Amino acid sequence: MAADKPNLPEFNPPRRILLGPGPSPVDERVMRAMAAPVLGHLDPLFLRLMDDIQALLRYVFETENRLTIPVSGTGSAGMEATVANLLEAGDEIVVCVNGYFGERMCDMVSRLGAKPLRVEAEWGRTIDVDKVRAAWKSSRASALFAVQAETSTGVLQPLAPLREIADERGGLLIVDTVTSLGAHAVAVDRHGIDGCYSGTQKALSCPPGLAPVTFSERAVAKIKSRKAKPASWYLDLGLVANYWGSERTYHHTAPITMNYALREALRIVAEEGLEARRRRHELNHRAFVAGVEAMGLKMHVAQNERLWTLNTVGIPDGVDDARVRRRLLEEFNIEVGGGLGTLKGRVWRVGFMGSGSTANNVFLLLAALEKCLLGEGFKIHNSGVSAAAAIYSKE
Amino acid sequence: MAADKPNLPEFNPPRRILLGPGPSPVDERVMRAMAAPVLGHLDPLFLRLMDDIQALLRYVFETENRLTIPVSGTGSAGMEATVANLLEAGDEIVVCVNGYFGERMCDMVSRLGAKPLRVEAEWGRTIDVDKVRAAWKSSRASALFAVQAETSTGVLQPLAPLREIADERGGLLIVDTVTSLGAHAVAVDRHGIDGCYSGTQKALSCPPGLAPVTFSERAVAKIKSRKAKPASWYLDLGLVANYWGSERTYHHTAPITMNYALREALRIVAEEGLEARRRRHELNHRAFVAGVEAMGLKMHVAQNERLWTLNTVGIPDGVDDARVRRRLLEEFNIEVGGGLGTLKGRVWRVGFMGSGSTANNVFLLLAALEKCLLGEGFKIHNSGVSAAAAIYSKE
Repeated sequence: MAADKPNLPEFNPPRRILLGPGPSPVDERVMRAMAAPVLGHLDPLFLRLMDDIQALLRYVFETENRLTIPVSGTGSAGMEATVANLLEAGDEIVVCVNGYFGERMCDMVSRLGAKPLRVEAEWGRTIDVDKVRAAWKSSRASALFAVQAETSTGVLQPLAPLREIADERGGLLIVDTVTSLGAHAVAVDRHGIDGCYSGTQKALSCPPGLAPVTFSERAVAKIKSRKAKPASWYLDLGLVANYWGSERTYHHTAPITMNYALREALRIVAEEGLEARRRRHELNHRAFVAGVEAMGLKMHVAQNERLWTLNTVGIPDGVDDARVRRRLLEEFNIEVGGGLGTLKGRVWRVGFMGSGSTANNVFLLLAALEKCLLGEGFKIHNSGVSAAAAIYSKE
Repeated sequence: MAADKPNLPEFNPPRRILLGPGPSPVDERVMRAMAAPVLGHLDPLFLRLMDDIQALLRYVFETENRLTIPVSGTGSAGMEATVANLLEAGDEIVVCVNGYFGERMCDMVSRLGAKPLRVEAEWGRTIDVDKVRAAWKSSRASALFAVQAETSTGVLQPLAPLREIADERGGLLIVDTVTSLGAHAVAVDRHGIDGCYSGTQKALSCPPGLAPVTFSERAVAKIKSRKAKPASWYLDLGLVANYWGSERTYHHTAPITMNYALREALRIVAEEGLEARRRRHELNHRAFVAGVEAMGLKMHVAQNERLWTLNTVGIPDGVDDARVRRRLLEEFNIEVGGGLGTLKGRVWRVGFMGSGSTANNVFLLLAALEKCLLGEGFKIHNSGVSAAAAIYSKE
């Protein structure tokens, strides 16, 4: 009745060049830190490491929020932890939907018995602020949600106007920063974000497995005044905060080695500095865009609405999406992503995130792409590599 | 307004001898596997690794269940995933409570809007089967829950009688095997367990961060016939199964490196074999018990109800719990656990789990404990090390 004993060899994966929507390439320092000896989750040395991580997360989130911790799950667990704690059954929330992750938020909110009020935009466009204001005014929503960096489309959503709208009724501003943290200005305190979550595997260049979150005092007050406990015990931030706070009350066994990795990844971010990191991501993004446009490809997102971390490149007519991605992987060891949802087969998703955002990677991908596109019979207009080199030479 | 930039040194923890309630010591092979280059979660090589892990998990769970996967969180996430998918609001479940984890299950079940029917036993005793039968017969419960290995008390709960009781009405048997998997006979198919969850950081000797779960066909049918979606999107096993199944539908970014670690840890379990692993855990447990009893200490749990993985040792009158544990940690680099809940200050929790279950560790802890107890003014009856050596010499 029981299963056979499998007899499997060692697993020795190649070192991929990770230029998709995540995970991003991980620095050797992070891998070494992760392999340090395992401590118990109540060991005094581990408790000190937890304090370090909180201080480092406050730095990258640009916040003084006390409740700033990594949730023990991937970015999606951070997403769920945020709304499962900030919403109760019956609450209304205005949800900006211009991609896959806005859609997912509607699903999560509905499961909690709360009501998502959708404000939509085309996949690849920012959300129209006037439509958000209208939805806010005509509802009794207590919260407003937007994705700062839509990984499915490559769109950057401005946050300041959303804060203004929520302020009309003292509402909570909840923001997804999975693909912006460590590359774009998340600036939690300046933007007045009340509930903010991210992942470790994008611009922080740490393996996936933890979800940094941060909550304002207003958000903490909302959690403390809940009528019912959150449906999830695992993601109940009131309980989790008692472990990460001075009480150190046991909640669950923390993923020890993932926390080692995150500490080192955040240390690298702090060494470079947020401002230098932003400039680096922006420059490599500009060089890549110059390259693909020179070759005759079109970016899916308008120039002033683009992310620096995640580029959606339109797939030209007659070019086989899956075949190009397979050749990039098999011939060049490069991973790029395919489109999600309505963009499936229409765009490639190219990420230059964290330690993956380098001129070397931009040149490499442009060159490999040129070869693959020639194979597809696409007529290259001009050299992408030359166009990128011109951008770099101006710096 | 934003936080200062922290300036922190490298984190270089010592190699603790982890003999507490978990995490357990991790084999070097697992640490090396974990540090292999990160792959994307849709990379063909990672998809193959997912198949390997499922095959290996079926082997250690001793099951042919198709739905056998690691949930992307620690053991507690597996606990919540199991009941959040198998129970709906209004459902009744008989919950055996003889320790911390039975209590936690009642909390989780209540949050889901389901009703826990408690059958209690003292912390340190098994659950009385007749009381379970009475609770089952007098209710309309659709499920019966027990903890096979109570990490808070060191008690092993026999499962066969519980299956018989649930069979009276075709109910689901849900079992916590966090501290038994890889050491005691979990034997999912033989025991007729419908929903079973575990963690990676106990007798599997893998760092914490994933929660292996397995579901019978009856459990899968229950999931498929749910009236409402589970409250948690992250732990919705219908969605997660589509990623781990042949569809490979993107759900969340899997914790890549944790899965590398789990594959290697399971490969080590398979190399040793489940039967040899059980004998090893049992022998080291017997030697340790002989040692502490020779010294004049008392085990908290009766002889025929003890776990091999987790030993609760009564703290003698006049001995300072925290001071002894601090000295073990600071002088000998050994971690043991304190008591939880009603056992706080009354027992030490000593784990010999996975690669931590060795004669060397048994000898070492007995010797260190003797020194610490002498320092507390406790009169040692006989040499614990000699008593343990006598057990080993008979093998």
